[in-house]
Amino acid sequence: MPSAMREGGRLVVIGGVAAGMSAASRARRLRPDVEVVVFEKGGDVSYGACLMPYFISGQIEKREDLIQYHADFFRRERGIDVRLNSPVTAVDPRRKTVTFRDPAGKEDHLDFDALVLATGARAFKPPLPGVGMPGVVTLRSLADGEALRQTIDSGTVRRATIVGGGYIGMEMAEGLTSRRVEVTVLELLPHVLSTFDADMAALVEKELADKGVRVRTSTEVQGFEPGKSGDGVGYVVAGGQRLETDLVLLAVGVRPNVSLAESAGIELGASGAIKVDARQITSEPSVLAAGDCCEAYNVATGKAGWIPLGTTANKQGRVAGENAVGGNARFGGMAGTNATKIFDLEAGQTGLTEQAAKRAGVRAESAKIKSTTLAHVYPGTNAIIVKLVFEPDTGRLLGGQIVGGRGAAKRIDTVATALHARMTVGELEGIDMSYAPPLSPVWDPVLIAARQSGKKIS
Amino acid sequence: MPSAMREGGRLVVIGGVAAGMSAASRARRLRPDVEVVVFEKGGDVSYGACLMPYFISGQIEKREDLIQYHADFFRRERGIDVRLNSPVTAVDPRRKTVTFRDPAGKEDHLDFDALVLATGARAFKPPLPGVGMPGVVTLRSLADGEALRQTIDSGTVRRATIVGGGYIGMEMAEGLTSRRVEVTVLELLPHVLSTFDADMAALVEKELADKGVRVRTSTEVQGFEPGKSGDGVGYVVAGGQRLETDLVLLAVGVRPNVSLAESAGIELGASGAIKVDARQITSEPSVLAAGDCCEAYNVATGKAGWIPLGTTANKQGRVAGENAVGGNARFGGMAGTNATKIFDLEAGQTGLTEQAAKRAGVRAESAKIKSTTLAHVYPGTNAIIVKLVFEPDTGRLLGGQIVGGRGAAKRIDTVATALHARMTVGELEGIDMSYAPPLSPVWDPVLIAARQSGKKIS
Repeated sequence: MPSAMREGGRLVVIGGVAAGMSAASRARRLRPDVEVVVFEKGGDVSYGACLMPYFISGQIEKREDLIQYHADFFRRERGIDVRLNSPVTAVDPRRKTVTFRDPAGKEDHLDFDALVLATGARAFKPPLPGVGMPGVVTLRSLADGEALRQTIDSGTVRRATIVGGGYIGMEMAEGLTSRRVEVTVLELLPHVLSTFDADMAALVEKELADKGVRVRTSTEVQGFEPGKSGDGVGYVVAGGQRLETDLVLLAVGVRPNVSLAESAGIELGASGAIKVDARQITSEPSVLAAGDCCEAYNVATGKAGWIPLGTTANKQGRVAGENAVGGNARFGGMAGTNATKIFDLEAGQTGLTEQAAKRAGVRAESAKIKSTTLAHVYPGTNAIIVKLVFEPDTGRLLGGQIVGGRGAAKRIDTVATALHARMTVGELEGIDMSYAPPLSPVWDPVLIAARQSGKKIS
Repeated sequence: MPSAMREGGRLVVIGGVAAGMSAASRARRLRPDVEVVVFEKGGDVSYGACLMPYFISGQIEKREDLIQYHADFFRRERGIDVRLNSPVTAVDPRRKTVTFRDPAGKEDHLDFDALVLATGARAFKPPLPGVGMPGVVTLRSLADGEALRQTIDSGTVRRATIVGGGYIGMEMAEGLTSRRVEVTVLELLPHVLSTFDADMAALVEKELADKGVRVRTSTEVQGFEPGKSGDGVGYVVAGGQRLETDLVLLAVGVRPNVSLAESAGIELGASGAIKVDARQITSEPSVLAAGDCCEAYNVATGKAGWIPLGTTANKQGRVAGENAVGGNARFGGMAGTNATKIFDLEAGQTGLTEQAAKRAGVRAESAKIKSTTLAHVYPGTNAIIVKLVFEPDTGRLLGGQIVGGRGAAKRIDTVATALHARMTVGELEGIDMSYAPPLSPVWDPVLIAARQSGKKIS
């Protein structure tokens, strides 16, 4: 762990989104004497990247609503020295110095006593012919979101192609459809939503088809070609065909921003993200990391891995902030819990899928049940499918997946809680969950799935 | 534990609702050779008592929808000998015999190898003047529900008085209001919903008032008087006043049906309900009990207590059924988890409230936070209040309460899961719960409440 922060010492944080601002805020709260400087390469801090699909759909109207707190709030209310448009270009852990460019472009240095790397992740741009063409975009920064909203508002996009069937791809398929854009989703893998098993993802694919979205799975994109006017993308070449399109959204995943860490000689994990211990400390004792740039302990696998999520970033940020100023907090682990809404369906997942267990060489069995979100005779009840994954011998829970109508997805949180507690499916079945006809069947669907799982234990 | 059930032995179950039919079904499934006889004093098995408020409101239209499975289903599909309208009048655990009256009123005996008491609970009728008068009703049996639905359908009830501000009282206040009946709720205690603390119940009281329900708390009912026509109730006398009313619904709680057990010399617990061990076995080795007639181990208090709930009844029934035929299942405990919807509010509770902790002599601290059900800028987001109760020194979670708009109450299940896992508020704060703007804020409200709790630990 880092040595206790000296009185009046300086903490430098690189990155001002979820993990960075959590770390900065936590540190200042615990040690008001410590100077906290945040370098953010963009023009805003603390924005909600996950909100962007709803900004583009128009459900969230104002750009302002994407920003939880402004830089001025952190400066004024929390005494944090936030420096916008100030990219850090180098880190020297031994001399405890960062090199940065100020908004005017002038290079400068700043010493630190402790450093938190919260450099996040960036949208991956596959190196395909035409990927740099106007109209081929990604959605990661606030600037990306604003640009895409303007493009859609302009009414020039009749047909859009989304490359990648993950969360952002799915949410954007809904958002663009609601803007009366014809949407085609192209996915390289055999099914959308790679954090789900194929059987569960099939339910989502059906919902997409029902709502008019064309989904082509097992389809490789070869490149992009200009349209007739020549001033931007007009075709996607995929699976040997040329598909007309006015816009391409690349949503094929993100990569951790680790170049600063790498140049500084900080160790990376097998995943390629920064390796940290439970206190978020890197291989350099004075340097911590948090959020999408680093790994996290996974309670389902018992190993560190890289699953970039805002929820984890916030939690790790708090731990890093506390420890950077001499604390001794530990990150409690994550389960990769994620959820999304796709038109009238909700989907939630935590821990390992069956597919992921097999890939990891973990023996896994599963059970799947169908039930209803409310009492089956209560008006407005929806179908819900719950799948649990567990060790066949011990019954230890490994993960869960839920797809269903309104009220379905957040039930995954009980499975996540059970994963943190290392429960067996038998123990999960015994949990006293709430019942009222307008809210649930008498046996919550998660309990029914746990019972079904129990029958399969040898 | 009971000796292993002999080949072709007989299990007798008294009571054919939640616990009884769960026990009978489980036993037959595990041991198809065993004869299972269920005595039910009423004319239906397996009905959903909690559905009745929605049957009376008309949201559930058909009486049929209140019955999950008919007696014939159990006879045909599960080979269970269900005997309707057949009350058991005596149990002799030493001779292993029950005495019952058949539907024709003829008394008879039946021997058993094992017996499951699933006699349930009955609505408490306070011994007040006029309590036996027509128009003063309770709501417990299916017959009660049908009669009340008919009364409301007849259009003769303009004003109704609900005595008791518990779940049934609250749900019926909504149900009757939706039928254009003017509703007054009279509650003896200082607030409605005694399973919640006063500050949380106040939110529900406000909702009731907003929706036109008059609520009078700290109000004692002295009795009931006939109306001018003389053929039924016309007035409630309460708090020294005479209030005009066309109907009185007594919803002042239930009492366990233990007279059969008592007469048979079976031990009761301090609560007055039947004492059982974790295997649902009573003081008589061949007699088990399950459901509202017996106690249950409470994971929040670490002690047995009596909290009658259908969810617990189902779970205990399965354990009793398994053990009655020689199994060795254990009931995993309950937390008293309960939830309800009251007009546009949802309320959920688990474990101990602050008030209950104080009554039980448990040192307790609490923290309460306000958040939103969805991302705060997502359309349709609702306010949600979460209160957690915990031990001030150790931070061990003792209970939780949630009141809020749509999507609020079922979040209590994560708190219940954490209670089963004996987590501290610090551990709860670390749970990886799901986030997506249409489903949740980035920090689930339960996590925010856990964090707030952590700040209060000494």
